[in-house]
Amino acid sequence: MDKIKVIIAGPRGRMGKEAVYMVQEAANLELAAVLDYKYNGQKLSELDGFSGIDVPIFTNINDCFSEINADVLIDLTTPETGYIHTKTALEHNIRPVVGTTGFTDEQLMELKELAEEKGLGCIIAPNFAIGAVLMMKFSEMAAKYFQDVEIIELHHDKKLDAPSGTAIKTAQMISEVRSAKQQGHPQEKETMTGARGAEMEGMHIHSVRLPGLIAHQQVMFGADGQTLTIRHDSYNRASFMSGVKVCVETVMKVETLIYGMENILD
Amino acid sequence: MDKIKVIIAGPRGRMGKEAVYMVQEAANLELAAVLDYKYNGQKLSELDGFSGIDVPIFTNINDCFSEINADVLIDLTTPETGYIHTKTALEHNIRPVVGTTGFTDEQLMELKELAEEKGLGCIIAPNFAIGAVLMMKFSEMAAKYFQDVEIIELHHDKKLDAPSGTAIKTAQMISEVRSAKQQGHPQEKETMTGARGAEMEGMHIHSVRLPGLIAHQQVMFGADGQTLTIRHDSYNRASFMSGVKVCVETVMKVETLIYGMENILD
Amino acid sequence: MDKIKVIIAGPRGRMGKEAVYMVQEAANLELAAVLDYKYNGQKLSELDGFSGIDVPIFTNINDCFSEINADVLIDLTTPETGYIHTKTALEHNIRPVVGTTGFTDEQLMELKELAEEKGLGCIIAPNFAIGAVLMMKFSEMAAKYFQDVEIIELHHDKKLDAPSGTAIKTAQMISEVRSAKQQGHPQEKETMTGARGAEMEGMHIHSVRLPGLIAHQQVMFGADGQTLTIRHDSYNRASFMSGVKVCVETVMKVETLIYGMENILD
Amino acid sequence: MDKIKVIIAGPRGRMGKEAVYMVQEAANLELAAVLDYKYNGQKLSELDGFSGIDVPIFTNINDCFSEINADVLIDLTTPETGYIHTKTALEHNIRPVVGTTGFTDEQLMELKELAEEKGLGCIIAPNFAIGAVLMMKFSEMAAKYFQDVEIIELHHDKKLDAPSGTAIKTAQMISEVRSAKQQGHPQEKETMTGARGAEMEGMHIHSVRLPGLIAHQQVMFGADGQTLTIRHDSYNRASFMSGVKVCVETVMKVETLIYGMENILD
Repeated sequence: MDKIKVIIAGPRGRMGKEAVYMVQEAANLELAAVLDYKYNGQKLSELDGFSGIDVPIFTNINDCFSEINADVLIDLTTPETGYIHTKTALEHNIRPVVGTTGFTDEQLMELKELAEEKGLGCIIAPNFAIGAVLMMKFSEMAAKYFQDVEIIELHHDKKLDAPSGTAIKTAQMISEVRSAKQQGHPQEKETMTGARGAEMEGMHIHSVRLPGLIAHQQVMFGADGQTLTIRHDSYNRASFMSGVKVCVETVMKVETLIYGMENILD
Repeated sequence: MDKIKVIIAGPRGRMGKEAVYMVQEAANLELAAVLDYKYNGQKLSELDGFSGIDVPIFTNINDCFSEINADVLIDLTTPETGYIHTKTALEHNIRPVVGTTGFTDEQLMELKELAEEKGLGCIIAPNFAIGAVLMMKFSEMAAKYFQDVEIIELHHDKKLDAPSGTAIKTAQMISEVRSAKQQGHPQEKETMTGARGAEMEGMHIHSVRLPGLIAHQQVMFGADGQTLTIRHDSYNRASFMSGVKVCVETVMKVETLIYGMENILD
Repeated sequence: MDKIKVIIAGPRGRMGKEAVYMVQEAANLELAAVLDYKYNGQKLSELDGFSGIDVPIFTNINDCFSEINADVLIDLTTPETGYIHTKTALEHNIRPVVGTTGFTDEQLMELKELAEEKGLGCIIAPNFAIGAVLMMKFSEMAAKYFQDVEIIELHHDKKLDAPSGTAIKTAQMISEVRSAKQQGHPQEKETMTGARGAEMEGMHIHSVRLPGLIAHQQVMFGADGQTLTIRHDSYNRASFMSGVKVCVETVMKVETLIYGMENILD
Repeated sequence: MDKIKVIIAGPRGRMGKEAVYMVQEAANLELAAVLDYKYNGQKLSELDGFSGIDVPIFTNINDCFSEINADVLIDLTTPETGYIHTKTALEHNIRPVVGTTGFTDEQLMELKELAEEKGLGCIIAPNFAIGAVLMMKFSEMAAKYFQDVEIIELHHDKKLDAPSGTAIKTAQMISEVRSAKQQGHPQEKETMTGARGAEMEGMHIHSVRLPGLIAHQQVMFGADGQTLTIRHDSYNRASFMSGVKVCVETVMKVETLIYGMENILD
């Protein structure tokens, strides 16, 4: 099978660098070029941290898409730049995979129409950590059968907000399928305030903060005589790259815009 | 909404007794009668452990199904009796929910035809522990995105066989979707034999046995920078009853025979 | 080595029954008699649930201690009865192991003097679950080296109070050795009230309640790049019996009164 | 209280760099100088990664110890260099904290005599990860009360050997206090070879290898109705530094040589 030819926009960013390494190591992917806002005409291998990766750097997107015969654009830049990249890629029959939460509904609608008109896949994902996306998806599925659920999220102690965004999103996804229930004993009493955690529609959320920890979440479901636990541990940024890879493979097979990785994992 | 009227066959067995309690406590279910091989004409409330549960006991299945206007039969007897019960129930337009692994393929085929002819649901389930079934289902789903997986099952130290049946079934379900891979370092070396556990198609299975433990299983998936863990803890027999309840609710909505709870959980 | 001869007071209670079974199964212990408030002169084997356990039942404590040549009394009755039993046992040169939180300081002082005068061991323990006692002891030890700690206790959803008594006791033991510290980020903000749990001197305690769970506690310590977790899972009443056994063995070797199992575990 | 004045040997190594940062951030420690094999006379702040850390670099150990009035030497070099450093430090009345497994018994004996002659503390530690050392120590303590134990160690899949050195050391420490017992059911049968893991004196050890994992170990003890679990998770090299700090504080209070951190944690 032919390799999927990939262009990466933003190769020197933290996520972009990981994406370059991921594409290099994947047997079914091939890095064809990179898009940057400087170093036009140089080789990526000339830059720090990319020795041996001998692909051209473009600063002009139209030049890049015209000269390079690519299948997929991985865009890890900003929402503003990313929007232009995505639109231009579709116009050049290149399928975009974009990591951002920053597109407006109008932009998403417009890009969806363009993708369908061209019969091209386009994936926009706020979160590429495939394990986290599966944890949320499985939690939503399990909540149909287990009314009782508590979420424990654990992070390093430099984190400012509690609960984490992922915990809140998980609780929201669960609440859409779970029958409402005030959990715990009806006469339950906190002898120390806060012991039972935060509450959302009768569910409880607990935020643990400790030095040493990175980013972890555990969703526990209970019923008579059993518990079901779904846990995701994220140790570093590389955890996003298997998700990017799945998106690149999937975008080749669809002919519309998909928002959110949960909608491509079946 | 009308309650679902239920007949339970085998009410004095260990599972049957739990089923009686479960139906009594469920707001949407109503116990209409029980089938036993003795005590015909008595009330269930006259027997030990059922005080206040005032439903008739039948020993003759045709009498029972004719006199009692029921929706569902929960059968927790033996494969032989269960087969006759299931067939007779369908003939009386009662939908069966049967806990057994003992039906032959011919019997299943025959019952399926009968169910579809009558336009009735019929659910045959080898395992009613909904958490265990979800753990296996989620593991199968996750294995599409994570090639690397290890199974750790933990049981009390009276257990004879290792690995457990559930661990083997989980590994089989995973192997149907997972791309083959020899896990671990290619030059990996056991300095103590058995350290890396049992192996099935490159996956590893570990069996822990300790007094105190009951029945637990943890399926761990790993990829660069992250792990995803799905764990089921079973503490006692009551854990089967939420599964029975889901089957009773589902059997009312389908018009064919379904084998295995994994096929009704979506 | 000679077996330790044991008398059990309160053999028909829930703890007492487990104690009878434990002594029967222990290779180094021998059940010599039981003390009950009825059935004097009968054999324990005549009572329900004790078939084959052919020891005499006494209702009169002085008769019992005079006729039976025992080493240890295990008392699992009430504080009132237990106090008289303990005192009388010491007077008969029998070493008491008593499970109670109900003795007054005066009673403890008096019993201690009596034990030392007689040169006999006497152990009074509020909690016989050896795993729980070790969890607390280890937590106290670890707190000297890890300032940052969070306690997560998990119980069935019939429990009324949060946090559990064990969690509070653990936090108190930790606070005696831990240097004071307000944990988490100084600007930490709860976007949902209670997310960060209850607080005691800067430590956080989280109470999870789910059907299916029994009694579990996890103490997590964190420092740069590492976490240390100590967890106790209690599944049933039998969990107290290994603690009773340790106390029986220990009481033979000491010549004073010891209060609390944490003081005999080294 | 006066700060403890510290010299670090090997500041540019991976461990050494972390040690420099740790001393800088500790309120009770002060970095006085560093020992390196080059850059004599320069300031540490002139080197990459140490901006603002304005202490002198020495290549000659005698010059360093004569000119700098230090309390403690942290040595993170090689066994050969470390031995000379340790001996010279003691001769200059400076207390050494050395991370190595490489000293011979003769060297240890000689250094111990020298330390005691001078009345100085000296700590030699093969492992500075305080959490790992506590995990081993607690496991050894728990094994007196729980005969049944299984060790599960989990590492990244680049690891060559199974089980890990820490797992083997933990099992050895446990076996010194545990009464011998062949664990599991006597008729236990592996239907897949290796399922029950490696065996040492009836204990079982399981090695999990998955990408994403770093270095983790869980020691599980079981008895009737309960389990006690001690777990250490190591996420990165910084995890060693709290151990180094404890050693620096302890070495000021003792007047002999101590080998192994387990002997300073009480």
